[in-house]
Amino acid sequence: MEQITIIGSGNMARSIAVRMISARHSVQILGRNGEKTRELVEFLGAGAQGGGEGAVVEGGIVFLAVPFAEAKKSVIFYGDALAGRVVVDICNPVDLATFDSLVTPVGTSAAEEIALHTTADAFVVKAFNTCFAKPLELGSVARVPLDVFIAGDSEQAKLKVSSVVAASGLRPIDVGPLRRARDLEAMMLLVMALQVSPAHENFNWDTSLNLLP
Amino acid sequence: MEQITIIGSGNMARSIAVRMISARHSVQILGRNGEKTRELVEFLGAGAQGGGEGAVVEGGIVFLAVPFAEAKKSVIFYGDALAGRVVVDICNPVDLATFDSLVTPVGTSAAEEIALHTTADAFVVKAFNTCFAKPLELGSVARVPLDVFIAGDSEQAKLKVSSVVAASGLRPIDVGPLRRARDLEAMMLLVMALQVSPAHENFNWDTSLNLLP
Repeated sequence: MEQITIIGSGNMARSIAVRMISARHSVQILGRNGEKTRELVEFLGAGAQGGGEGAVVEGGIVFLAVPFAEAKKSVIFYGDALAGRVVVDICNPVDLATFDSLVTPVGTSAAEEIALHTTADAFVVKAFNTCFAKPLELGSVARVPLDVFIAGDSEQAKLKVSSVVAASGLRPIDVGPLRRARDLEAMMLLVMALQVSPAHENFNWDTSLNLLP
Repeated sequence: MEQITIIGSGNMARSIAVRMISARHSVQILGRNGEKTRELVEFLGAGAQGGGEGAVVEGGIVFLAVPFAEAKKSVIFYGDALAGRVVVDICNPVDLATFDSLVTPVGTSAAEEIALHTTADAFVVKAFNTCFAKPLELGSVARVPLDVFIAGDSEQAKLKVSSVVAASGLRPIDVGPLRRARDLEAMMLLVMALQVSPAHENFNWDTSLNLLP
């Protein structure tokens, strides 16, 4: 059993928490919004506890379940409190005004940018950015478990994330070094643009990007 | 019924040809290698005919089933013979020495580079780069038809490609303008790196990148 911390109290925080609790991990929700945090902890029930921003980080794995700009601020805010921990960036740095570009410069990734702002003693991993909240909460789409693509420069950190992912009924796929996050984020720009496109009325944030079989 | 031209006589040429013939389209194989071209045409049987480099291009849709560098040379070589046609770039400009980067500069794509070299009267479309030859020849993986992600700046050209893709038992997904090829090519760098990685002994060029359901 792992102790998991999730920074954020939105849809992705909820879905990751549901998956982790399904595998009997303990989940700590650290939300800035006290009311949403309390509601989420109540929804999650046994296995979950809440805390405000600045509470003691208890998880060996810390999910940044917040948008890119917030994620950067969070790793700066928590600073050394993240030392020795696995920090999981799940974000998609998509320009939400256009769904036509990323807000990160070409040649890098949100994950690498976040890693630059994270204490050097932490282990930054990219994961779950290809998962949308609704299918993730269910764990599967069309009876196929969701694929979780995992990129990072620490083999041990990736093994830790892979282990909780597999235990929660999903399929972890180690895709290599953290710079592979560039490719994952690029692809999700395309996939997210499909979800908002009126031309694709069947894609409504309920799809899953999978490598079959 | 469409007349399809395929430039190339390798595995991808074969798989695309098999799919197209399954939908009763006529296929013209234009290969540089006379023997391979003859063998492929013989394998394909009725519905296929061969030609050497420089033969009259008969297809309204022309697949560039050759590597990136060759594809660029081909569109230059065929020049105005491609005018008015839909030219489909299927390539992945992956550095095959490392499987760690693309050979194209950041901020563009092989598709856009190829379009720059193609007569302005042709319509360049990116498609099939996420399909590997073996699953493509079969048409499905784990009973799920392959997704064919289609990017291009001409709606009519994309409709034409979508139509032959659907008729051949695959699922066409229009992913937007040609610049979305950047995202498709980035993701396939990652997916191809998985196929060659000894850590993933179950991924052997037989996977399919799908958006479920």
